[in-house]
Order: sequence, then C-alpha cells, then structure tokens
Amino acid sequence: MTALERTTEPVPDSEDGLVRVRLDLGYDGTDFAGWAKQPELRTVEATLADAIATVFRLTAPAQLTVAGRTDAGVHARGQVAHTDLLRRTWLEHEGVAQRQLRGFLPVDIRLTGISAAPAGFDARFSALSRRYSYRICDDPAGVDPLRRRDVVWHRRRLDAAAMNGAAALLLGEHDFASFCKRREGATTIRSLLEYTWHRDPTDLLRASVTADAFCHNMVRALVGACVAVGEGRHELSWATATLRAARRSSDVTVMPAQGLTLEEITYPADAGLVDHARRARRVRTIPNAQ
Amino acid sequence: MTALERTTEPVPDSEDGLVRVRLDLGYDGTDFAGWAKQPELRTVEATLADAIATVFRLTAPAQLTVAGRTDAGVHARGQVAHTDLLRRTWLEHEGVAQRQLRGFLPVDIRLTGISAAPAGFDARFSALSRRYSYRICDDPAGVDPLRRRDVVWHRRRLDAAAMNGAAALLLGEHDFASFCKRREGATTIRSLLEYTWHRDPTDLLRASVTADAFCHNMVRALVGACVAVGEGRHELSWATATLRAARRSSDVTVMPAQGLTLEEITYPADAGLVDHARRARRVRTIPNAQ
Repeated sequence: MTALERTTEPVPDSEDGLVRVRLDLGYDGTDFAGWAKQPELRTVEATLADAIATVFRLTAPAQLTVAGRTDAGVHARGQVAHTDLLRRTWLEHEGVAQRQLRGFLPVDIRLTGISAAPAGFDARFSALSRRYSYRICDDPAGVDPLRRRDVVWHRRRLDAAAMNGAAALLLGEHDFASFCKRREGATTIRSLLEYTWHRDPTDLLRASVTADAFCHNMVRALVGACVAVGEGRHELSWATATLRAARRSSDVTVMPAQGLTLEEITYPADAGLVDHARRARRVRTIPNAQ
Repeated sequence: MTALERTTEPVPDSEDGLVRVRLDLGYDGTDFAGWAKQPELRTVEATLADAIATVFRLTAPAQLTVAGRTDAGVHARGQVAHTDLLRRTWLEHEGVAQRQLRGFLPVDIRLTGISAAPAGFDARFSALSRRYSYRICDDPAGVDPLRRRDVVWHRRRLDAAAMNGAAALLLGEHDFASFCKRREGATTIRSLLEYTWHRDPTDLLRASVTADAFCHNMVRALVGACVAVGEGRHELSWATATLRAARRSSDVTVMPAQGLTLEEITYPADAGLVDHARRARRVRTIPNAQ
C-alpha cells in the first residue's frame, strides 16, 4: 500500500529521450514476499523487473514505480506500475514486448497491458483511487479448496448487515491513525470513498474498499474492525470511537494478507495527469483534525 | 464420471447392523490423480478412505462409492460419496466425526457434510442428475492467476452465442457415443438435461452441463464440440451431425481436465430412493436409436 510523501522524482519529459511505459498486471500473491524488492526473496517487483530487462535487453533490472505496494501474500488483479525506457529501446521492442514478457513471466503473474504512458503519468502519484477486495468465508465447513488462496476462513459466523453498518461509519476524510502502522513523518489522513460488505450465495463475504490511497495495513485493519462488529464482539459505536481516537489500538485486528486483493487503480483523464500528480505529492493535514 | 451398468451390490438394511453414511465434499483436483484409488498415486478416494479409517478406528481404509468418478485434475464442489459402517462404530464417533475428519483431511479436500443416509440411499445409483461447470478464459492476456487452477486458457476468441446455439442442439436423450470413450458392454445413451454457455464481465466463459449421468470424458468432449463452433471451425449443423453419427470422432477435442468442476448431484426425496436406484441399475437402450 502506498503512503503519500514528498519525493523529488522527476516526471521525465518525452524530449529527453525517455519513454514512460505503463504496465498493467495481476498476480497470485501466495508465493511472493510482496511487491517490493528484497534481497534473496521472491518478489513481484524483482520478477517483473528481471523479465523487462530480458525482453528489452537492459543491462540491469528495470526500475519500477507502483501504484499499490502490496505486502507479502496480498494479491492483485488491477495493479499498475511504470518504468522509464530509452525511446529507441522502447521502439525497438514495442511490437513484441507484450507477447515476450508473457513468455518470461511465471504463471502467478499476468501482464494485461504494456503501453507508452501519456505525458505526466506516474503510476503512483497520478492515481486518483485504489480499490481493494477482502474475502472471508464463515461456513463452518471451511473454504472452498478452489478459493483457498484468496479467501480467509473465519471460524465464527459473521453478521454482514452489522459489518456494512460499521463500514458506513468510517467513510469520508479522516485521520485513520487507528487503522495504520505509523511511520515517522507520514500522514495518516485519507479519504475513504467506499466500504461495503456483501454476502454471496456460497457464504463468501466480500468487502469492497476504495480510498484515494491507503496507509500500511489500513485495509486489513478496516476489515478487522468490521469483523469484530460482525461477530458481535463490539457495537457499531465502537467503530466510530476507534476512528476518533486516531491512535493505533491493539483492539483492532489486522486480518491475514491472503484475503486481500488489489482490484483497481483509477487515474484522471490524460489532460489532468500532471496537475494531479503535483497535488498528490503534497502532505495533507486536516485543519482541527479530531 | 459414472457409467450406468449392472451391479450386484446390496443396499444394506439398517437391521443387519450397518449404517450407510453419506459424505458431501469438494476438492481442488490439481494435485490429485483423480477420484479413484490407484497404487502409489495421490487420489481423493484413498485420501478420504484413510481419513475415515483413522477417525472411526477402522482396521482398513473405508470402502467408498461415489456419485461422480472424476478424472485426474478435475475439481468438485458438490461431490457425494457413501460408505457403510457398523452401527456401533458410527454411533461411537458420530458427534466428533465431522470436526475430526476436517482435521485429518488436507487443505485441498473440504468435507461439507457427513450424516446417516436415509433408507435405500446409494451415492451413485440414487443420483437423479449430475451438474458440471467448465470454465474457459479467452482473454489474450491469459488467465487471472488466482483462477489458474480451475480455468483453462484458450488462445482464440470464442463466440459464446454460437456455443450456446450448438449446446442447445445436443439436449435430450441420445446415444452420445460421439462424445464418449467407449467401454465394452456399457451404454452411451444419456439424457442431457441442461447445457448453456455464459460469458461474465471478466471474459470468463462458463458452461453449465447437467445430465442424468455422463460417460467417460463426455463433458470435456461436449465442451470441445462447442469450442470448435465458438471459434468458427465448424457450423452449428456439424454439432448435430456429429451427435447423429454416434461414433467417436477425432474431430471432437476432449478439453483439458483443469477447467472441469463437478458442481452438484441431485437425489430424489427420501421415499423415492429405493425405486430410483433399482431403475438406474438397468442398462438403457433407445428403440431405433439413430
């Protein structure tokens, strides 16, 4: 998940000989130690960077910027990343890049698109919103084996209506410190745009959670809060009180990574890209935040 | 898949000290060499039979009869099997059997129910119908990695409407020899009760196929026939002509096992069980079958 913070990363201009390339992808996070590169661990970033280097014949792994820095075990269906390539490198391989990358990528990564990005595009800072799903099965018989990689089993029955009620109380722009792993100097103010729970006929509960951006662990903590309400451990009012406290509490469970999937990143229309990225780089404060 | 044939297996009477136990289960077939026991291979039947023997303290693996004998790599969500246990063995462990079996079974098998069956119940011969799904993704980008275990990728785009048209032509009671692996002495006459194709918003095509019973490879061959029509290799009329030929043809592709899932078995209400099992044991013939 992406924290909003100041960076000095330049947005490359097409005239300096670089092309910004947008990559759309999905992955089964089960066998990855998350998105971000780490020495000696299998990560999505390193796997993708190596495949790009191979296909475009780079001398080093590609440098990638990502919209949602997913943790170990978290999945993605609509992840977006970018990398900058020399124009001539891009032009030389553009026609075969997609097919070749698919050949080099393992079965747990799916490249759905690769294209030259519009001027001012930044996979991370241009993003208007991120949408995640969280999937829980509360059937006492356990999870359908065919869904065991992206569904978490919960041993107590959950009240989806109560969870929906709690979720609605958290919507809006707030300091989400109660649901975030704090990082020095980073804000925990976010706009929660959508948070709903839905139970399907197979007893699968699915949360859809959208925000402009999320702090670290935030979706999984928001899910944990609604699960506490859904199993009757807390009243609805507890969710509001916890939000208002704006302080991390051991009372909020961070749910397992496996149930979480990054579904979609939205971006402004091409014309709005530069302006939006500039705004997104600013650290936000809420006047008189409670 | 189950062939209809004569058997001499007795339906145990409750007075002889045996209880017929019904097991409802699902599995991810990826890492199994199918349902049926085979020496030195990991099969669903052997895994389940061993777990039952452990929980009920039997001296040998339980003997199982199954509704749908799935092939290697085929999945199940609504599989049904039965086994006969001494009444006192059942009564001694009945209360804890479900929880203990779940503990002994691997993550790729899910036991959804275990119960004493009504008089006359036979998991195989009492079944009125079997419903399977087949899932294909024809997105050029490949299969969503989270669904790669139960969805087959098809490299050419498919016309779901044409596939639906071909499927409708195959409905009814016919000799399905063109779509079956022939076995000496076994009939290939079946009633195809439902066969539809549906495309969802993520470019996943799903077939729903229901029959009183299926011959070996029959669903995967019926899917292959519609795929041939869906990619424009054959006209609708070819599906009808192939059915009428009633002879196995190399023109009909048997699709990969991985896309196939046994979804549901239906049984008559308790009172009709004995009669239905007796009828199902008879070998069928169609007078003047074409």
